[in-house]
Amino acid sequence: MSSNSSSAIADLPIGIFDSGVGGLTVLDAIRQQLPNEDLLYLGDTARVPYGSKSSQSVIRYARQAADFMVEQGVKALVIACNTASAVAIEDLQQRHPELPVIGVIEPGAEAAVAGSENGEIAVVATESTVNGGAYLKAIRHRKSDAVVKSQACSLFVSLAEEGWTEGELVEAILSRYLTPLFSDPDHHPDTLVLGCTHYPVLKQAIANVVGPHVTLVDSAQTTSNWVQQQLQQANLLRQQDGSGRLHYLVTDGPERFARVAELFLGHPVPVSDIELVDLQ
Amino acid sequence: MSSNSSSAIADLPIGIFDSGVGGLTVLDAIRQQLPNEDLLYLGDTARVPYGSKSSQSVIRYARQAADFMVEQGVKALVIACNTASAVAIEDLQQRHPELPVIGVIEPGAEAAVAGSENGEIAVVATESTVNGGAYLKAIRHRKSDAVVKSQACSLFVSLAEEGWTEGELVEAILSRYLTPLFSDPDHHPDTLVLGCTHYPVLKQAIANVVGPHVTLVDSAQTTSNWVQQQLQQANLLRQQDGSGRLHYLVTDGPERFARVAELFLGHPVPVSDIELVDLQ
Repeated sequence: MSSNSSSAIADLPIGIFDSGVGGLTVLDAIRQQLPNEDLLYLGDTARVPYGSKSSQSVIRYARQAADFMVEQGVKALVIACNTASAVAIEDLQQRHPELPVIGVIEPGAEAAVAGSENGEIAVVATESTVNGGAYLKAIRHRKSDAVVKSQACSLFVSLAEEGWTEGELVEAILSRYLTPLFSDPDHHPDTLVLGCTHYPVLKQAIANVVGPHVTLVDSAQTTSNWVQQQLQQANLLRQQDGSGRLHYLVTDGPERFARVAELFLGHPVPVSDIELVDLQ
Repeated sequence: MSSNSSSAIADLPIGIFDSGVGGLTVLDAIRQQLPNEDLLYLGDTARVPYGSKSSQSVIRYARQAADFMVEQGVKALVIACNTASAVAIEDLQQRHPELPVIGVIEPGAEAAVAGSENGEIAVVATESTVNGGAYLKAIRHRKSDAVVKSQACSLFVSLAEEGWTEGELVEAILSRYLTPLFSDPDHHPDTLVLGCTHYPVLKQAIANVVGPHVTLVDSAQTTSNWVQQQLQQANLLRQQDGSGRLHYLVTDGPERFARVAELFLGHPVPVSDIELVDLQ
């Protein structure tokens, strides 16, 4: 690859794909870390949530999303959705060998193993991420004797999207899912992986429930590190100074997306930056 | 129409369509009331939920579902989903003038107006049903001076699907949505419409929260009455004695459907009765 074409590719945006709004926590981390980069976010809001859908459906949706992003022109593809990462990452990497395809599971597992002192790791995620065992595999791959306990937390996504992120009632709901992970007298996980990109919005309330002796791993930051590293290795980091631009694509309901996005980003997203697209 | 062809049509199943499992409460009511009828249920589980999607998307999904059911051969179509009824019923009635197309909003509104003594009616439903104002219009159409207060209850569907249907925590969650509907000093609704087919699963807990002076209206039974009436008028009720058959179509995850269906029907649905179909 000539340095010219490499530079032209470097100017392309990083594509970030999620089933809905949760991936904005990953976008936010990348934005902080790589402020020069243009970011193109795609939320498949017409078919959200993925967490309760079958693997076959999620793979089909993820392929359509990835193909669409690649057609738009991106220099890397971040699967900022745990469910899609869990079931579709290898498929997408084979389908698009021309660019880095980075999921959130491997970075999350890496951070968990690095952060855990006793090798006992709890994971909370959607039903389909838990059922597929992706975190278990990714953690054991790095630390074969790790003790991993997983719990599907079906209400967490609704809580996050509803903006119910703090208070006694919210903590009581979280506790019903989290307490069993920490009540086994023989195991005391010191690390809890937030295995869904919606969950960081609930981070403080989760911390209140599990207590200060448990480290929370939010894969957004680690994923952002991976993105930087892979772009650096490929010499595809953008050199220009100045602010990269953000653009949002959704498959349904720009107004609702704008409203919920504010919960995740902490600042409003102008509806004029959000474009309705059809993946099918 | 000759009596022969009318009898052939009478032998067709009644089609019942929902975004997922919630419409099973309507299926169950029809099943009790019309045990001779074959029922064909379609749950669009690949795209559930509809309640947070835009009207345009819900109309598109509802058209695909209705067309599919009509191709399969049904003698009536029941839109057993409040969100789809709210935004798509007229479209579907115009699209399929050859058969009765019955939604759940009009029967629900009728039951609410009949049941309310003081004309003050509260409605709980999904975000998109509430935003569209369909219940307000349907109730006011019958009683122009009715006082109608509506509340979107985004967590209720998750609670129902998760099987969280009773206990203090569940009632505390319900209360956060329901209390504001009943705390206006100038209005005291005596009727609460459960404006989503998922909600009847939470009926007892909702009753505990709102108290015995509020009548709960669940449109399943009233809808079933409408179905009987319309089939009777068209001379399309099935004459044979004996049990009608049930068949289920889903667009994703038959296993999950079978599991959640049991929560709604109170008895298991054999996976062998559930067929995976593609609407697109």
